[in-house]
Amino acid sequence: MPDILIGRLLVLHPPSGARHPIDDVRYSGGAVPLPEKALIAQIRRIARPDRRKLADRSVRPTRTAILTGIGDDCAVLRLLPGHESLVTTDFSLEGIHFRRDWHPAESVGHRCLARGLSDIAAMGGEPVAAFLSLALPRDLSQSWVGRFARSLISLAEKHGATLAGGDTAESPDGILADIIVVGTVPKGKGVLRSGARPGDRVFVSGELGGSAAAVLQMRSRPKKKLNPRDYPRHFYPEPRIELGRILREKGMASAMIDTSDGLSTDLAHICEESGVGAELDANLVPRASVGKPAREVDLDLALHGGEDYELLFTARPGKRIPARMAGIALTHIGHITRLRTILLRNSKGVADELQPRGWEHFRR
Amino acid sequence: MPDILIGRLLVLHPPSGARHPIDDVRYSGGAVPLPEKALIAQIRRIARPDRRKLADRSVRPTRTAILTGIGDDCAVLRLLPGHESLVTTDFSLEGIHFRRDWHPAESVGHRCLARGLSDIAAMGGEPVAAFLSLALPRDLSQSWVGRFARSLISLAEKHGATLAGGDTAESPDGILADIIVVGTVPKGKGVLRSGARPGDRVFVSGELGGSAAAVLQMRSRPKKKLNPRDYPRHFYPEPRIELGRILREKGMASAMIDTSDGLSTDLAHICEESGVGAELDANLVPRASVGKPAREVDLDLALHGGEDYELLFTARPGKRIPARMAGIALTHIGHITRLRTILLRNSKGVADELQPRGWEHFRR
Repeated sequence: MPDILIGRLLVLHPPSGARHPIDDVRYSGGAVPLPEKALIAQIRRIARPDRRKLADRSVRPTRTAILTGIGDDCAVLRLLPGHESLVTTDFSLEGIHFRRDWHPAESVGHRCLARGLSDIAAMGGEPVAAFLSLALPRDLSQSWVGRFARSLISLAEKHGATLAGGDTAESPDGILADIIVVGTVPKGKGVLRSGARPGDRVFVSGELGGSAAAVLQMRSRPKKKLNPRDYPRHFYPEPRIELGRILREKGMASAMIDTSDGLSTDLAHICEESGVGAELDANLVPRASVGKPAREVDLDLALHGGEDYELLFTARPGKRIPARMAGIALTHIGHITRLRTILLRNSKGVADELQPRGWEHFRR
Repeated sequence: MPDILIGRLLVLHPPSGARHPIDDVRYSGGAVPLPEKALIAQIRRIARPDRRKLADRSVRPTRTAILTGIGDDCAVLRLLPGHESLVTTDFSLEGIHFRRDWHPAESVGHRCLARGLSDIAAMGGEPVAAFLSLALPRDLSQSWVGRFARSLISLAEKHGATLAGGDTAESPDGILADIIVVGTVPKGKGVLRSGARPGDRVFVSGELGGSAAAVLQMRSRPKKKLNPRDYPRHFYPEPRIELGRILREKGMASAMIDTSDGLSTDLAHICEESGVGAELDANLVPRASVGKPAREVDLDLALHGGEDYELLFTARPGKRIPARMAGIALTHIGHITRLRTILLRNSKGVADELQPRGWEHFRR
């Protein structure tokens, strides 16, 4: 039986033939009604990789992990020697992380996987496989699931990851998804939160506050649908996989995290893990421009709004950090201190303590 | 910094000190109310491993995987050379997989993890790490979560696995858990569903139907609480990790699956993956004895009732299979055929087709 390369995964087909990983999704929800079986069959069809791609063995096989035993009780992943596995899990729950009346199915699928991919990026790792646990209410349309799954799988393929399994169930209420992403990083090279030292500079990629700005807009005018094109960082956040990998390869980042909870909270995580403090310059924090006509978000949103999925990292004093990398702006916003607090210096040069008010503050 | 052995995981403490994996559980549900933060803190305390165990380096270090980078965006797992990773995910949703009025918190926690461990057992693998995504309703008591978590973590420790991270969220409705178990198996040695050949004998461990019998009882008398001691296979199923490992090590199983969906459905999975059929002898199927006074379950329950988490496996004609292994009875119940159907031979010697009616049939 020939080995077949799917993205970056070498898949040894089981003897019984051409079953794809997602075929193993089990009907473990009990009493899965027929319409849901149709939905699951639909996901399978979408997940089934393109035959032409299967034949393409040129997709960076040297850094692949190898997957065997598909269509079984577990997926089997084989890493190249000298690599470690990264594992991250993230819920996407209707009413908590998204709303069906606010978010198109494509956005829900994209954001579901982007959350996990962003965690891999924050370690400087590369994604290998995703596992989707998905519970659906009985009345959900086949079309919704198709759009959700196509968007999720398309983002996975873009980053060289394969949807390699998961679980399905009937949901007691609302759409419930849990995404697991398994990634890989060369042994001992994962960029941790704990590596920041006094004197390091603090950098952030892209712009901040764009995602939370969309949430505020939708909350203030719940009936009006936003155009995802005016708020791309909210509806279709692009995980910074390539940027994270380059920062890790070049040894530029001493500590790193993704801005999923908001700058103030995520920087607090780095400081706590590293046993240090930080000082930020309010004028330097890059603020997203959103809406139509586009306008810059308030400083508070850039400081505390979450779900931007940018990379926040520190760099040793002597290390040169370019202004752009992998097409994304890198902005120097402050530095690490010995003091165990985070200070924010305003335009008048006055420094006040910056409380971690990320995420919770803007969720309701 | 000394390396510290937790169970079978070698944990390299991060520079900032003594944080445990579960400390990394992120408040990503948004607006996690204070009582829930207390609950999460409680899980952390329970998950924090015993100092004495930390010092015990004698726990089979030769088959450990190595975990580093704890307290970060991802968990980092390092396998021993010559090993592959196994990954499995399973939902446990209130109202679908359990009911708070039927199942004690301890049973819910135990069953949640047992589902994942049983998938690892079915590959002949050994569990390494578990990740728990847990969404809780606002009104859930601290005591419930404590009992749930203690039971789950105690089962993990019993099988040498560490709760290594996860996600938390506020639930829109009911308790929602998704368990991810990562295991390990020597390269190429995982026992697949696809290895059965005509002439192989079919075996099952333990007894069947005991779990479904509890569900039927509870459904018929919803107000009456069952005594878990009278239905242990339903409330506290023991995953057959040791048995699966020995079967794999001794090369006894040509194909294997766990009986999570019910014998008829799980055997159909093996047959489908292997491109074969099977014939079972109704008289040989081992039926569980449940209740007080104990009585044997009906044949239908043994054939179609799910969630027994026994091991169903096939063995080549010449292979000697003992009557007991790892303390568990192994029963020869039939054989694999070329014909692509599953037949059940009754006591009169008449064979009828056995439809896969597992799981769904008994769920509602």
